[in-house]
Amino acid sequence: MSNIKCIVAGPRGKMGSEALRMIEKEDTLELAACIDRKFDGKQIKEMEGLPSFDAMIYTDVDSCFQEVEADVLIDLTTPEYGYKHTKLALENGIRPVVGTTGFSEEQLNELRELAESKQLGAVIAPNFAVGAVLMMQFSKWASKHFPDVEIIEKHHDQKLDAPSGTAAKTAQLIQEERSSHQQGHPDEKETIEGARGADADGMRIHSVRLPGLVAHQEVVFGGLGQTLTIKHDSYHRESFMSGVKLAATEVMNLEVLVYGLEHLLD
Amino acid sequence: MSNIKCIVAGPRGKMGSEALRMIEKEDTLELAACIDRKFDGKQIKEMEGLPSFDAMIYTDVDSCFQEVEADVLIDLTTPEYGYKHTKLALENGIRPVVGTTGFSEEQLNELRELAESKQLGAVIAPNFAVGAVLMMQFSKWASKHFPDVEIIEKHHDQKLDAPSGTAAKTAQLIQEERSSHQQGHPDEKETIEGARGADADGMRIHSVRLPGLVAHQEVVFGGLGQTLTIKHDSYHRESFMSGVKLAATEVMNLEVLVYGLEHLLD
Amino acid sequence: MSNIKCIVAGPRGKMGSEALRMIEKEDTLELAACIDRKFDGKQIKEMEGLPSFDAMIYTDVDSCFQEVEADVLIDLTTPEYGYKHTKLALENGIRPVVGTTGFSEEQLNELRELAESKQLGAVIAPNFAVGAVLMMQFSKWASKHFPDVEIIEKHHDQKLDAPSGTAAKTAQLIQEERSSHQQGHPDEKETIEGARGADADGMRIHSVRLPGLVAHQEVVFGGLGQTLTIKHDSYHRESFMSGVKLAATEVMNLEVLVYGLEHLLD
Amino acid sequence: MSNIKCIVAGPRGKMGSEALRMIEKEDTLELAACIDRKFDGKQIKEMEGLPSFDAMIYTDVDSCFQEVEADVLIDLTTPEYGYKHTKLALENGIRPVVGTTGFSEEQLNELRELAESKQLGAVIAPNFAVGAVLMMQFSKWASKHFPDVEIIEKHHDQKLDAPSGTAAKTAQLIQEERSSHQQGHPDEKETIEGARGADADGMRIHSVRLPGLVAHQEVVFGGLGQTLTIKHDSYHRESFMSGVKLAATEVMNLEVLVYGLEHLLD
Repeated sequence: MSNIKCIVAGPRGKMGSEALRMIEKEDTLELAACIDRKFDGKQIKEMEGLPSFDAMIYTDVDSCFQEVEADVLIDLTTPEYGYKHTKLALENGIRPVVGTTGFSEEQLNELRELAESKQLGAVIAPNFAVGAVLMMQFSKWASKHFPDVEIIEKHHDQKLDAPSGTAAKTAQLIQEERSSHQQGHPDEKETIEGARGADADGMRIHSVRLPGLVAHQEVVFGGLGQTLTIKHDSYHRESFMSGVKLAATEVMNLEVLVYGLEHLLD
Repeated sequence: MSNIKCIVAGPRGKMGSEALRMIEKEDTLELAACIDRKFDGKQIKEMEGLPSFDAMIYTDVDSCFQEVEADVLIDLTTPEYGYKHTKLALENGIRPVVGTTGFSEEQLNELRELAESKQLGAVIAPNFAVGAVLMMQFSKWASKHFPDVEIIEKHHDQKLDAPSGTAAKTAQLIQEERSSHQQGHPDEKETIEGARGADADGMRIHSVRLPGLVAHQEVVFGGLGQTLTIKHDSYHRESFMSGVKLAATEVMNLEVLVYGLEHLLD
Repeated sequence: MSNIKCIVAGPRGKMGSEALRMIEKEDTLELAACIDRKFDGKQIKEMEGLPSFDAMIYTDVDSCFQEVEADVLIDLTTPEYGYKHTKLALENGIRPVVGTTGFSEEQLNELRELAESKQLGAVIAPNFAVGAVLMMQFSKWASKHFPDVEIIEKHHDQKLDAPSGTAAKTAQLIQEERSSHQQGHPDEKETIEGARGADADGMRIHSVRLPGLVAHQEVVFGGLGQTLTIKHDSYHRESFMSGVKLAATEVMNLEVLVYGLEHLLD
Repeated sequence: MSNIKCIVAGPRGKMGSEALRMIEKEDTLELAACIDRKFDGKQIKEMEGLPSFDAMIYTDVDSCFQEVEADVLIDLTTPEYGYKHTKLALENGIRPVVGTTGFSEEQLNELRELAESKQLGAVIAPNFAVGAVLMMQFSKWASKHFPDVEIIEKHHDQKLDAPSGTAAKTAQLIQEERSSHQQGHPDEKETIEGARGADADGMRIHSVRLPGLVAHQEVVFGGLGQTLTIKHDSYHRESFMSGVKLAATEVMNLEVLVYGLEHLLD
C-alpha cells in the first residue's frame, strides 16, 4: 500500500504543528503541502520550530487542492475556515479529517450530502484523543449497569470554564443511556454550598483546578459493594494525534461522512 | 410479571448467605427453598445469621426439585456439587445460575446440550461482579487502540497467589485482542529483581499485598501523551450479588446455556 | 511489663464491640470489665455477637471503678456519658481514652486540670483513625510549600452531610498554616452551578456520594509542573482501633490530658 | 530586601534553561551571569530558545566569580564540573545551590568544612522537586505507624532502570525508620515470577513503564481496615524549579552546608 498523502491546514497552530510532528514519525503518512494564511510559497522546513519537510505552503486553497496530489486534508484551524476547507476538499476529491466542535447542524448535513454524492470519506470529530473518546464510550456502557455515577475532572488553573466540555459531553452520553434518577441520600444537605458539585440530571460533576495539572477526568460508578472507575489523563497535546492518525488512515476506507471518532473505535 | 422463584444451594456459605440477603431486598425475586448438606426439613428463619425466610431446607436434591415449584436454581457451592445440581435442575425444568470456575470443557458441553434440548436458559459464570466483568470487557476493547498495558492488582495480605485470577484472566483477554509485542525499553534492566513485575506476553502484572486492602485492580493503558485507566474496587462480597441478580433475571429469557456474565452485559 | 487492664464503656456499640475484638487480638491489652446501661452482672461471653471474655458488665460506674483493678478506661459512648465516665475515672486513678468530638471547651479544661492534679494521663480524640490523622498532619505541612490545594472526599450515599467532618477539619488545619488566598483563575466561571465545589477560604472541597463507597478522602496539592496527593481510604470501622490501641498504650506514659491523636504520632 | 543575584552554570541544559525561565518569572531573583563551556562573551539573549536576559556568558569560571557581583551560584551541570564550581564559588564568597547525586562523601566533607570556615551557606540536593521530597519525608513518618508498605512508581517507557532512584531512596528512608519485617502472607507464592515486585527489606517496589507517562510514584501504607497513600506526579521538569527557588532564597540565611532539600522544608 502506498503512503497516504496529507495536506495540513494550520501548520503553525498548536495542534497543526503537532500534526506535522506526528506525520514525521509515521511511515504510512506523508506531508504533501500545507495551507496557511501567510507565508505563501515558503517551504515548511524554512519555518522556525517546525519539522524540516520539503512541503510548500499555500495561502490560496483552490490552487493548493488543484496543484497538489493529495489523499487527505487534515484541518486543525477554526470552524469558519474549517468549513470552507472541508467543502472545497470534497469538491476536489480530497478526504477531509477535521477537528472541531463548531459546525452547525446545517453545515454538517450539507457536508454529509456532499461526501455521499462524491462517495468520499470524511471524518469530523470534536475530540481526537482516543483515550478520552473511549472513556466516554465505556462510561455510556457502564451506566446501563451502574446508574449511580459522578464525574471528577481536574485541570490546570488557567482554565476558565467549569465543568469542562468533556465532562459535560460525558454526562450527556450517560443521560441518553440511563433512566433519569436522583442520586445521593434524599435528605442530604450541604453545610457549605457547592460541596456536592454541579447537578447534571442527578449526576454530580466536580471540577478541580490546580497549578501543575494538565487535563484529567475520572468517571466513578458505584454499586453494591463496589466501584468502577474510568480515568483518562492527558499529559500533552500530542495525545490528540493518535486520533488524527487513526482518522487519516480510516477515512481512506470510507465513502460517507462520519461525525465523532467513536465510530472508528469499535 | 410474577416473581422469579429461586432455590439457593449453599445458603450457609459466604456467597450463599449474601444471595439470601440479596433476594430479601429484591422485589422481583422470591426464595422458594434451599439445598444444604445438613439441616434437612428446617426453615431458613431458624438458622442463626440468615434472613428470616419461610423456606425449607432440603438435603435431598431430587426431592427438592420435584416438590418445590421453582424457576431458578442459584448454586454457589463447589464445582463437584454444582455440576450435579445443574444437571438435575435442567432435567427438572429449572434454570440454573451457577458461580464457578471449576467445570471441565466436557461438563460444560454436556450441560450446554442438555439446556438446548430442554430449551432452558442457564448461566454459568466464573465471576459475578458486574464491575469486574465490565473492567475486563473495556480492557479488551481498549487494547485494540492502546497495545501497551500494565495491570496493577491490590489485595489484602492474606491472599496466597499472585497474580490474582482476575488479573490473569484480564491479561488473557487482552492477549486475544492485541498482537503480541514486547513492552518497555528494549534495554531496560532491573537493579532489583522483580521490579518490572510478572511478564504475561509483554504485559506486566504487579501484585500488591497489604493489610487493610480488600480487592482492587487497575488496568493502565499508555499511548502518545496520555493514559487510560480502568479500575475496579471491590469493598465487600455483596459486590457479586448484582451479577447474580442480573443472571437470575436474564436466565428467564434464555433458551440456551450462556458461559460468562459478559454475554448479559451488552 | 505487665498487660494494660482496660475497662470498655459501650461494649455493644459499633465502636465498643470493635474495641473488644481489638483487645482480644492484642497481647499487651487485657479486658478487666465493661460498663453498659443494661445487663448488670452478666459476663461479656454471655452476650451474642461479642468475643467470649470472662469480664463482668457493670451498670453502676462507681462500683465498677472501685471494685475492678484497671489501668485504662476506653470510652466509646456519647459525649454526655463520656464526660461523666472520664471524670469519675480520673477521680478513681484510672486513665481515660475517649473518642468524641462533643466535649465543650469548659469540660475539656475541667478534665485537663483534674488530670494534672492527679498526675494521670488522659487521651481525648475526635478521630482515632491513625491514617486519617496522619493525612491531616501531612496536609498541614504540605500547605506551607503548596498553597494551592483542593479536597475530594468520597462516601457511601447514606451520608447526610457534605462536606464530611474530616474534610472540614482538614481545610481548617491548612487554613491555619497557609496565608489566605483565592485559588483558580480569577475569571473562572461555572456553567453549571456548584461545579467548583464548596469554597473554604479559597480551597475547594468536593463531596462524592455513591453506593459501594465506604469513607475516602484525598487532598491534592498543585505546584509548578507537579501535584502531591495524600489519600486515606477507610474500608472498615476497625480502622479506628489502631488509634485506640495506640492511645491505651501511650496514656500509661502520660501525666497530663492530651487532646487529639496527632500529639501521639510524632 | 534587595534581589538575590544569581549565576547559573549550564544555561543550555534541560535543567539550566528551566532555571533561567524560573528566574525570569520570580521578582526576588535576578540573573547576574552564566557559566558555559562555550559561547564566552555572548549575551544570554543572543542564544536561541533562552529567555532574553542581558547577562554575559563566561567560560572561565574564575573570571566570572571575580568580575560579577553575585550572591548565589545555581549549578545544574555534572558532578565533575559541579564540584569545581562549588569549591570556587565558596572561595569567592558566593553561596552555591547544586543539584547532584554524584558527590563523594569525601568531596561533601571538604565542601562542608570550606562553607563553615567561610561562614557561607550552601545547599546540595539530589532532588529539587519539593513534592517528591515531601513524599519521602511523609513516607518516613508514616512508616512508624504503618510498617506494611509497598511502592508503585510509574514512568515513560524510555526509562532504562527499574526501580527508579526515587523509589529506591524512599525505601531506604523507610527502612531506617521501621524495624525490618517480612510482608505479605508467609505462604504466598508467585504463579508468574516477578508478580510481587522487587523485594527491598520486605517492602515491595513495582515499576510500571508505559508510553504517555511522565514520572509518578505512590507509596501505599496498609493497616487495620485502612490504607494511607502518598502520591507524587511530576508532569514537567519545571517541577524541580520550586526547590531551586527555595534553596536560592534560603541559602542566604545559612552559614553552613546543607545536604538535601528536606532540611529546608520543616
